[in-house]
Amino acid sequence: MRVRILGVGMGPQHVTPEVADALRGCDYVIAAQKADDDGLLAARRAIAAAHGVEVVAVPDPARDRDPSSTATTAEYGVAVRDWHAARVDAYAQVLRERGGTAAFLVWGDPSLYDSTIRVVESLAEQWTAQHQPAHLPLEYDVLPGISAPQLLAARHRIVLHRVGQPVHITTARRLRDDIDAGQRNLCVMLTGTLDLTGLDDWSIWWGANLGTDSEELVSGRVADVSAAIGDARARAKDAAGWVMDVYLLRGPATHASAP
Amino acid sequence: MRVRILGVGMGPQHVTPEVADALRGCDYVIAAQKADDDGLLAARRAIAAAHGVEVVAVPDPARDRDPSSTATTAEYGVAVRDWHAARVDAYAQVLRERGGTAAFLVWGDPSLYDSTIRVVESLAEQWTAQHQPAHLPLEYDVLPGISAPQLLAARHRIVLHRVGQPVHITTARRLRDDIDAGQRNLCVMLTGTLDLTGLDDWSIWWGANLGTDSEELVSGRVADVSAAIGDARARAKDAAGWVMDVYLLRGPATHASAP
Repeated sequence: MRVRILGVGMGPQHVTPEVADALRGCDYVIAAQKADDDGLLAARRAIAAAHGVEVVAVPDPARDRDPSSTATTAEYGVAVRDWHAARVDAYAQVLRERGGTAAFLVWGDPSLYDSTIRVVESLAEQWTAQHQPAHLPLEYDVLPGISAPQLLAARHRIVLHRVGQPVHITTARRLRDDIDAGQRNLCVMLTGTLDLTGLDDWSIWWGANLGTDSEELVSGRVADVSAAIGDARARAKDAAGWVMDVYLLRGPATHASAP
Repeated sequence: MRVRILGVGMGPQHVTPEVADALRGCDYVIAAQKADDDGLLAARRAIAAAHGVEVVAVPDPARDRDPSSTATTAEYGVAVRDWHAARVDAYAQVLRERGGTAAFLVWGDPSLYDSTIRVVESLAEQWTAQHQPAHLPLEYDVLPGISAPQLLAARHRIVLHRVGQPVHITTARRLRDDIDAGQRNLCVMLTGTLDLTGLDDWSIWWGANLGTDSEELVSGRVADVSAAIGDARARAKDAAGWVMDVYLLRGPATHASAP
């Protein structure tokens, strides 16, 4: 029994040769089928079909994808874990029935704000507990894909950090805490809502639905472009039925942080 | 006049379809030829040849690639800028002589600790100053590639952050300052030397020469694996003649930071 976790980037244009080779060697792709289809299932079907591999669509357990912004980190963690356990059970059933080599196609890269590796770790633990591991281990590996921050940077033709300085990749939920802790160059993922209050003099490089037909890009001083971002976000959602955005925020240059 | 900045990941296995298409549309690739060849020129030649594109090798200006660890950030910035200006002049000459569409092949991703975007920005400024911009603008774009931190994470089958938490991507030069400022989950690039003194109880996921035949991987508690990392680093250097490493460092779990 083998599982391959394959990063497919932000679309078929990013499917690397090693991912394409791996995919062609798989017996089937397991893909989540969500109640409110966000287009990802169709996108995964297209990639799998392009390489001649069948897709097994698995109804996804419900998840509170946009919990209250007042939820604590602990509450957020609990919500993620419940959803995670239900997903593991659904996928384990497919693996038991079908065997062979299964692929998961991860939008973007498996190493950033994606739960697939944790899901497969849990699958492997469950598998070991229920089978004779010496005879039937569940092996898995991971191949990388282009991530949203990279495509954001490429579209805006920027480097994600000032010369020799760090980039802090974080979530919208943590943004204020990270700024309060002194971060001045942040790449923000899992945005949900966009609140830039009090950051008027910061610079932003923003993108939504990157790599798709509904892609939108805006950059500039926050106070100058906030309205344009709101408009672009609405356009992306109108065009695609969903919106996923990511942005780089950089504080006003100071002597200490200038390159 | 057009320049395309193409991320090629950690080898030909990571050249995405969009980068391959872009490369085939270019007239030539400009590649740095270093005094101490680190294998990158040969790797770029192989990728260009696979897509039928000529390589123009440009002798690289000397650069202090491993300045004293006691150099200040300002001194480091000056060294980078001098090297940068010399590179720009060398490439501008090639563009003037050859015209057409030129590609730069960026190892890894152009958005992380790579100077190509800044070099091309300077080329475009110089071009505009020396030509009639309305007739001969220098246009450029950027396409992303798989970066070293992503391949590190894939090889170790990890996510780069704890659930819902940030990842701080930084340089070895800044590591101590960033830890002092409270960072407990850091991805470290541009390592040069590896000093893990005082981090015995931290966890490390380390890799060198990722994606090549001389790839090395080590992970574990810092105190337990420091010696193994030293050995692996020496092996990578023996095998390839050079060593480039990257690692994720994670502080001991605390109540506040546990997932």
